[in-house]
Amino acid sequence: MELSIYLAGEIHSSWRDEIKEKAAALKLPVTFYGPMEDHDRSDNIGEEILGKQHDAVAKDAAASSFNNLRTELLLKKSDLVIALFGEKYKQWNTAMDASTAVALNKPLILIRPHEHHHALKELSRKAHATVETPDQALKALKYIFE
Amino acid sequence: MELSIYLAGEIHSSWRDEIKEKAAALKLPVTFYGPMEDHDRSDNIGEEILGKQHDAVAKDAAASSFNNLRTELLLKKSDLVIALFGEKYKQWNTAMDASTAVALNKPLILIRPHEHHHALKELSRKAHATVETPDQALKALKYIFE
Amino acid sequence: MELSIYLAGEIHSSWRDEIKEKAAALKLPVTFYGPMEDHDRSDNIGEEILGKQHDAVAKDAAASSFNNLRTELLLKKSDLVIALFGEKYKQWNTAMDASTAVALNKPLILIRPHEHHHALKELSRKAHATVETPDQALKALKYIFE
Amino acid sequence: MELSIYLAGEIHSSWRDEIKEKAAALKLPVTFYGPMEDHDRSDNIGEEILGKQHDAVAKDAAASSFNNLRTELLLKKSDLVIALFGEKYKQWNTAMDASTAVALNKPLILIRPHEHHHALKELSRKAHATVETPDQALKALKYIFE
Amino acid sequence: MELSIYLAGEIHSSWRDEIKEKAAALKLPVTFYGPMEDHDRSDNIGEEILGKQHDAVAKDAAASSFNNLRTELLLKKSDLVIALFGEKYKQWNTAMDASTAVALNKPLILIRPHEHHHALKELSRKAHATVETPDQALKALKYIFE
Amino acid sequence: MELSIYLAGEIHSSWRDEIKEKAAALKLPVTFYGPMEDHDRSDNIGEEILGKQHDAVAKDAAASSFNNLRTELLLKKSDLVIALFGEKYKQWNTAMDASTAVALNKPLILIRPHEHHHALKELSRKAHATVETPDQALKALKYIFE
Amino acid sequence: MELSIYLAGEIHSSWRDEIKEKAAALKLPVTFYGPMEDHDRSDNIGEEILGKQHDAVAKDAAASSFNNLRTELLLKKSDLVIALFGEKYKQWNTAMDASTAVALNKPLILIRPHEHHHALKELSRKAHATVETPDQALKALKYIFE
Amino acid sequence: MELSIYLAGEIHSSWRDEIKEKAAALKLPVTFYGPMEDHDRSDNIGEEILGKQHDAVAKDAAASSFNNLRTELLLKKSDLVIALFGEKYKQWNTAMDASTAVALNKPLILIRPHEHHHALKELSRKAHATVETPDQALKALKYIFE
Repeated sequence: MELSIYLAGEIHSSWRDEIKEKAAALKLPVTFYGPMEDHDRSDNIGEEILGKQHDAVAKDAAASSFNNLRTELLLKKSDLVIALFGEKYKQWNTAMDASTAVALNKPLILIRPHEHHHALKELSRKAHATVETPDQALKALKYIFE
Repeated sequence: MELSIYLAGEIHSSWRDEIKEKAAALKLPVTFYGPMEDHDRSDNIGEEILGKQHDAVAKDAAASSFNNLRTELLLKKSDLVIALFGEKYKQWNTAMDASTAVALNKPLILIRPHEHHHALKELSRKAHATVETPDQALKALKYIFE
Repeated sequence: MELSIYLAGEIHSSWRDEIKEKAAALKLPVTFYGPMEDHDRSDNIGEEILGKQHDAVAKDAAASSFNNLRTELLLKKSDLVIALFGEKYKQWNTAMDASTAVALNKPLILIRPHEHHHALKELSRKAHATVETPDQALKALKYIFE
Repeated sequence: MELSIYLAGEIHSSWRDEIKEKAAALKLPVTFYGPMEDHDRSDNIGEEILGKQHDAVAKDAAASSFNNLRTELLLKKSDLVIALFGEKYKQWNTAMDASTAVALNKPLILIRPHEHHHALKELSRKAHATVETPDQALKALKYIFE
Repeated sequence: MELSIYLAGEIHSSWRDEIKEKAAALKLPVTFYGPMEDHDRSDNIGEEILGKQHDAVAKDAAASSFNNLRTELLLKKSDLVIALFGEKYKQWNTAMDASTAVALNKPLILIRPHEHHHALKELSRKAHATVETPDQALKALKYIFE
Repeated sequence: MELSIYLAGEIHSSWRDEIKEKAAALKLPVTFYGPMEDHDRSDNIGEEILGKQHDAVAKDAAASSFNNLRTELLLKKSDLVIALFGEKYKQWNTAMDASTAVALNKPLILIRPHEHHHALKELSRKAHATVETPDQALKALKYIFE
Repeated sequence: MELSIYLAGEIHSSWRDEIKEKAAALKLPVTFYGPMEDHDRSDNIGEEILGKQHDAVAKDAAASSFNNLRTELLLKKSDLVIALFGEKYKQWNTAMDASTAVALNKPLILIRPHEHHHALKELSRKAHATVETPDQALKALKYIFE
Repeated sequence: MELSIYLAGEIHSSWRDEIKEKAAALKLPVTFYGPMEDHDRSDNIGEEILGKQHDAVAKDAAASSFNNLRTELLLKKSDLVIALFGEKYKQWNTAMDASTAVALNKPLILIRPHEHHHALKELSRKAHATVETPDQALKALKYIFE
C-alpha cells in the first residue's frame, strides 16, 4: 500500500524536510505534496501568468485562483493530511486546509506545540491524532505500515 | 422557500444582531444559527458537563467535544454560511467553519474589511461572494428572495 | 407530495407565466424558482451591493458572485429543472444550469423548438424528457401527480 | 503524481495541440482527453453504428448516445478540465462540459478571450481560474507540479 | 415520523389497495406513491404529450421519458420501497425499480410468492426483508412505528 | 430547529425514559427514536410475520430482516445518535449502531461508565462527545439549543 | 486510459466471446468482467461452500450471498456496463444489474434485439446507448478510444 | 483485477495466516490489511509516541488516535472486509469495523461459529455472506476470481 500525504503548514521553516527525510530513511511507501514554498512566487503567480492586475486585491484574487487550484488537486490526490502549526501560529491557510481535510473525511494528523492548545482545541478534537512535533507525526505514519 | 443560515464569526460584537434585525424587518423567511456567544460558557462547557478536568488541555478537549457537536449539527442544518472576519481577524474558528462550509459545498458569503484582503485571499476566491460589511451580506441574502 | 421546480431559461419573454398559471389552475402542489428576471438588475447587482467596480470584467465578476449564489441555492432547493431554449437559442446560462442539473442527478425537462434540435442534441439525450413547448412541459409535470 | 485532463472546447482549431506540445516539452506527467475532433464523424457516429435513422432528430439522438457516453467516461477519468471558448464563442458543448465539471467538483480552468467576458461571467466566477490563452492555462498546469 | 413509500409492482391487480387500506385503518403516518396504473395511459403518454411518433420504438421512447421522470421523482421522495412480484412474475419494471432502490440504499421489502423464490433469489438476498404477501409487508411496515 | 435523535443501547433499563422526560421538561424540540424495547417481540418478529422458521438461525435471520429495516429507517431519519453502554457492556447492537452512525457522519454522543473506558476507547475517540450518564448526554443536547 | 467493463447478460451463449475477441483484435485497453458462466456452479456455490442447506429457498439464499458479493465487487471495479438481453429476454439478473449500473451512475450500453423494444423501453431510455448486437456495442466501445 | 482486503477480528490467534497462506497458494491477486496484532503495542502506541499520559483513560484515548487513524486508512484502501468472530466473541473492534464496512457500502464476509449466531444475527443479515470458518471465507474470495 502506498499513501499520498499533503503537508499543510507554514512555508518558512524546513519542517517538511524532516518528515520527508525520515520517511525516506524508513523506506515508507509514501509520496508527499505541499503548497508552493516560495512565498513570493505564491503571492505573485497570478500576475506572473495573467499580467499586472489592477490593485492588490485583484492581484491576490488572481494568485489565489492558481494556488487554490493547486491545493485542491493535491489535496484530492492525498489519502492523509498532516497539518503543522508552528511557532507563530497565525497560519490561516493551514487552518483552512486542515478543516477542509476533516470535512472531506480525509484523516488528519495535527502537529501543534503544547502552548497553542487553546486556539486549536476544536481542530484538535476533530483530528484523528494530535502530536507536538514532526517526529511524532512521522511515528504515527510509520505505525500505519507496521 | 426558507433558508437556514449559520453565522460564523467572532462573538465579541453584535454583528449578528444587525443581520437578524434587518432580515426580520424585511420579513425574509430565514432562520439564523450560530456558535455559543458567551465566551466563558463556551470554554467551560466541558467541565460544566463532565466535571473538573486534569489540566487546561483536557479542559479544552472536553469543551471542544460539545462545541464541535453543536457547530456540526447547526452547520448541517444550514443552507448557507455567512462568515465574518472583523477587526481582529485572527479568528480561527471562523476560518475553519468557513472552510468546512466550502468543502461541504454549502454556499459561503465572506464578510471581511478591505484591509484584511491578503490573509483571506484564498478563502475569498472560494467563497461565492465576498463583501465588506454585514449590511452588504444582508443585501446579498435579500437578493436571493427577489 | 410537493415539488420545487427551477425554471431555467431566457428572461425576455413570459414563458414562465404560462407554466405558473397552468399549474395554479390545475392546483398542482408545486413551487417555482427562477433567475432574476430583471436583466439590468441581474447585471448590476454586484455594483449595487459593493459599489462601482474597476472595469466591466470586475463588474461582471461581482454580479456573478450574487447571481451564482442565488442560482445555486434555488437549484439545490429544487427537485426538478425545466430548461427552456427559446427562439434565440444562444442562452448560455440556460445551457449551464441544465447541465448542472443533469450532473447533480436532478431530473431535467428540456423545452426546445424543433428547429434547434441539432445544437441541443447532447443535452436532449441526457435530459429525462424533451418537449417543444411550455404547455407540453406542464403536461409532463401534471402526469407526475396523477 | 499524474493528472488526467479533459480538454473541452471547439474542434475547429489546433488549440489542443499547443497545450499538448508544451506539456510534453516540459515533461509534465499528464494525459489529455478530449471529444471526437472529426466533426463529421461526431455527427454521424449514430448512423455509422446503428444504420440510417428516420430523420435528422433521430440521427442526432443516436449520435448523442455515443458522444455522451464517450464524454462522460473521459470526464470521469479526468482530474481537471480545461475549457476553451475561442473566437466564435457559441460553443454549447463546451459550456455544458464546463458546467458539468463544476457540478461534479472537478477543478476547471476556463480559457476565454477578454472580449467574451460578459457571456461567460457566471462560469468564470465558478471556475478555479480564468485565463485568456492556452499558454496561460499551460502555465497554471505547470505550477501545480512545481 | 412519517414515511413515504413507493409501491413497485404490476398494475393489473389491486394489491396496492390492500396495503393502503390496512395502513389507513392502522392510522400509520405514511404516504404511498406508485406508477401510473392505467396501462394504456402509461404506454401512450409520450404520444399524448408530443403527438404521434414515427414508429413503435419511438412511441415507446417518448412514453418512457415521462414514465422514467415520474418514477425517478417519486422514488427519490420515498424512504422505503415495497416491490411486489405477483402471479406472473415477469415484471421488468418491478425488478428494475427494486434494484434501483437497493443501489440507492433505500430499504426494500420484497413481496414474492414462494414458488418464485429461484428467479428472485439475488434480489431477495439484497432486500432488507422478503415476505410472501402484501399483508406481511404491511406488518413489517407497522413494526417500524411501534 | 428540531432534532431527531436515535437512542441506541440496551433495552433492559429505563434509561431512555430519563432522557425523554428531561428533554420534555426543558421543552427541547426533539423527537426520539429507538429499537423495539420488548426483547421477546424483537427476537420473535420474524416468525410473527413469516411463520415458524426452520431452526434458530433461520428464526434469527427472519427477525433481523425486520429489525434491521426498522433500525436503518429510524437511523436515517435521525440527526444525532446517543449510544449508551450500561452496566453489562456486552451490547453488540449498540456498538454496531454507534459505529454505523460515525461511518455515516452522524454526530454521536457516547454514554459509558468510567470503568468500561478500555473496551470502548476506539469508539470514544471517534464519537463527538463521551459522557458517563444519560443526564450528561441531556446537558450536551440542551447546549445545542442555547 | 484503460477501461474495466462488466458484461451483464445471459450465460447460455458465447456473446461475451465475440466482444472480447474483437476488443483484443483492436488492442483496446480494456478488461472484461462478468458473472459466473457455469450455471450449475452459480446455483450450487452456496452449498459448495457452506454445505447442504435446509431447502431450495435456503440453498438459493446461500448461493446468492456469494453471487451478489462477486457481482457487486466486479461492478464496483467497472467503469462501464454492457447489458445484453438476448433471444429469450426474461433475464432477471441482467435487468437488475443494468438498473444498478444506472442508479450508480455507471454508463450503460444496452444490447437488445429490435423485437424486444417494448419490454425494455424504460431501461433503454435511461441507458447511454441502445444497440442491437454485440458488434455494435463493440463499435461504441472502440469509439471511446478514438 | 486486484483486491485489497481488510481482515478484522481478534488478534490472539493465527487465523489471518490461514487465509493469507491459502490465498498465496492459489495465487489470488489480493493484498491483506489488518490491525496491529501485537496487543501491547496497540494499547501502548499512544504513550510510545506522545509520552506518559495522565491516567488510563488518557492513555487509551492517545492510543486510539493512532489505531483509529491506521484502521480508517487501511479500511479506506480496502475493497472488501472479512470479519472474524472467534471463540470468545466479545470482540468490540471487530463488530465496529464490520458495521463501518457495511455503512460504507464495502462488501462484508462475516465468519462466525454456528453457536454465536444469535448475538450476531443483525450483522449477519447485513453482511453479503456469512460463513463459519476462514477456509469458507477463502472459498468465497476465490469464487470472485473465477
